Formats: sequence, structure tokens, C-alpha cells
Amino acid sequence: MIAGKVVGSLVSTRKSDKLVGNKFMIVEPLRHMSADTRQIIAIDVIGAGIGEYVMVAQGSAARIGCDMPDAPVDAAIVGIIDEGGIIEED
Amino acid sequence: MIAGKVVGSLVSTRKSDKLVGNKFMIVEPLRHMSADTRQIIAIDVIGAGIGEYVMVAQGSAARIGCDMPDAPVDAAIVGIIDEGGIIEED
Amino acid sequence: MIAGKVVGSLVSTRKSDKLVGNKFMIVEPLRHMSADTRQIIAIDVIGAGIGEYVMVAQGSAARIGCDMPDAPVDAAIVGIIDEGGIIEED
Amino acid sequence: MIAGKVVGSLVSTRKSDKLVGNKFMIVEPLRHMSADTRQIIAIDVIGAGIGEYVMVAQGSAARIGCDMPDAPVDAAIVGIIDEGGIIEED
Amino acid sequence: MIAGKVVGSLVSTRKSDKLVGNKFMIVEPLRHMSADTRQIIAIDVIGAGIGEYVMVAQGSAARIGCDMPDAPVDAAIVGIIDEGGIIEED
Repeated sequence: MIAGKVVGSLVSTRKSDKLVGNKFMIVEPLRHMSADTRQIIAIDVIGAGIGEYVMVAQGSAARIGCDMPDAPVDAAIVGIIDEGGIIEED
Repeated sequence: MIAGKVVGSLVSTRKSDKLVGNKFMIVEPLRHMSADTRQIIAIDVIGAGIGEYVMVAQGSAARIGCDMPDAPVDAAIVGIIDEGGIIEED
Repeated sequence: MIAGKVVGSLVSTRKSDKLVGNKFMIVEPLRHMSADTRQIIAIDVIGAGIGEYVMVAQGSAARIGCDMPDAPVDAAIVGIIDEGGIIEED
Repeated sequence: MIAGKVVGSLVSTRKSDKLVGNKFMIVEPLRHMSADTRQIIAIDVIGAGIGEYVMVAQGSAARIGCDMPDAPVDAAIVGIIDEGGIIEED
Repeated sequence: MIAGKVVGSLVSTRKSDKLVGNKFMIVEPLRHMSADTRQIIAIDVIGAGIGEYVMVAQGSAARIGCDMPDAPVDAAIVGIIDEGGIIEED
């Protein structure tokens, strides 16, 4: 998974029927989590708000792990990181 | 998923039988969505036009989520982003 | 999928039994299709020749979409792009 | 798989039910193992400690290989590298 | 698949039960095969030696294609490239 910050959302009216009812959040990986600043569009099954730090699962884990095995989803917010919840001891 | 702009299309006469009938669109990820400008060829099950902004699902999500579980497809346009539909609050 | 040019081939005598009978082509993604020049080894189920422009599917799509669900294959040429078949309207 | 060092951990109280009971470790790939320093959040089924060098499996291998086929997990620590256990002969 | 050179191996005593009995080889992709020098840890089902050039399959292809569908494996050496077996005609 990667850790990132929810920086926005995305509205799509014309979309796959299987995506209806989902929220699409824009997540920006933390600086050390990605080679570059590369934002991801992830569905949100946890209820994360703008500005929160989250864990994002990608690939089939997003689809299957969020009980949407047949939906065209390749990224999902699967956890909200606690305040002070990133503990690094290099 | 990533967000990008449809910038072209691709014509392939000799192709896998399982791809017959599909449109192949060239999608350029938005600048913040990719480490570099890297275009993707995605099938289009929504009916996106050149110049539209779209969501693209990659990997098994494209194949399974678009009801083509047996086709050699690894990217699909799964939603058209509304005008003004990208809401960023950094 | 990505679009690329077939620039070579690869010979492997000692290989997985499940790969016997396949051709391994070296495909170089088009300049805009990849962050860097990164070649891919793809099996070829279409009959592409050196110098031809092709579509390559990656991941489980290559294996399952080419009727080799049990083979250790993660990339396949799934279409030959027509001459003049890349239509870009930026 | 990639080889990396466990450099921290991550605490998430609000998360997918399927993730309850897991530890989330921050793994930094070894310098030669990644194009850039890009950290990964991996579950840990082996019991690795901070500072240890580990093997991380990504994608469906993490989920299925760690007996969590239905969980939104895309990376897992699957082995601890022995001291002096990286043998390179360039 | 990618083509690379076996440059080392890795010893892991404490690992997933499903990995017991496997050899873990360090493969360095050929210069044109990767955006950067990024080594991969791959299991070896072919018997490749240090210094040999090999094909590596990644993702679910490694696991399923090497008859280890339940193991946490995301990369495998699936062929040894013949001497002079890389034929490029740019």
C-alpha cells in the first residue's frame, strides 16, 4: 500500500454502471512514497475527508478487497492514518 | 485510477479476435497524475470523445470490470470527468 | 495497452515448458508511451515482424487474454497498428 | 520481490474490517532495488522488526500468498533476509 | 517479461512457509529494459547461474505460471537466454 494525503475529489456523471454510488478521491502520495508526485484516483470505502492521510491499496486488492470484484476499480482508500500515526526510525 | 485527456485514437486491423469491435483511445495522464507524460492505450466502453477528460482503470480491473474477462485488455476508460469535475483543495 | 515498435527478438532454449513454441519479441514503447525508453519482452500471437508497430497488453491480460492462463507470460503483442493508424489530435 | 529495510510503522484505527489485526510496516527498498527511494507500506506476517532487511512481495501475491485472498492488501513482508544474506557477484 | 542478468542471490531463513525450498536470485534488468538500474528478486525454477542472462516474468504470471498459485511470489526466472540470443535490428 502507499500512504498519501487526500487533496481533492472528482465528479463523473457518465461512468460505468458498476461505479455508480462511489466517491472518487484524489490522493497524493507522501513525498517518500513515490518517485515523483503522482496523484491517484481512489474510491473511498472508509469515509476519508479532504486533508486526511490515508492508506491506498492498488491493483486487484482494491477491487476484491472492497467487495467490488466485478467493478473497474484499481485503487481504494482502505484506512485513515491516525494523527502521528506514521512512526519512522531510520 | 488515473485521470487523463483523450488525445487520439489507434487503428489496428490485424489484432486478437477478442479485441474486435473495440475502440482504442490514446489517453494522456494529467500532469500531476504521472511521473512523466506517458500515454496509455485504453479501450472505451463509455463513448468518450477526443479532448474529453476521463478516468482510466488499469490492470485486471479493466478486463473484468468491463465484462471482457477473457480479452487481452489492460486499460479502459471507465468514466468521463464532468466539466469542472476535478476539485482540488491542497 | 502501450504502443511500441518491434525492434528484435530473443532466443531461449532452456525455458519453462509452458513457454515452448512461443516467439519472444523485443518491443520498444513509443517515445510518448513510456517515461523512459524501456523495452519489453512480449510473446507474439499475431505474427508481428521486426519494424512493425504493435499494441502490447501487460499483466494478467497477456496470459488470460492469449489463452495461456497457466503460462508465465506477463506481456503479449495483441494487435498490429495500421500504417498511419496512430491518430493524434492534441 | 524487492529487498528493503523496515524503517517504520503506521497506525490506522479507522480501516477496512479486513485489515484489523495486521501490522503495517514502512519498507524502504534498497538503493539498487528501486529507481528512486520509494517507500512501501507492507503487512507483516513474519514478525520483522525495525531495522531488519526483508523481502516484500507485491500485487496479488501479497494477498493470496498470505492467506488473505479477500483483503485489500497489495504488499507483504514474506521473508527476513539473513545477516550477510545478500550475495552479489557482479 | 524483462531480460536481465543474474548478479547474485539472497538467503532468507525466516520466511513464509510457502517459500521454503526456493532459490532467490537477484536479477539486474538490461540497461534498455528498465528506466533505471532496478534489481528484482526472482525465484528460479529453471536453474540459472550467476552471470547468466534470463527472462523474468512478473506479477501473477510468476506465481501461477510456476505452479505456485498460493505462494507470495511476484517474480520468477522463466527462461535462460541463449548466448547471442538477443537479436536487435533497430
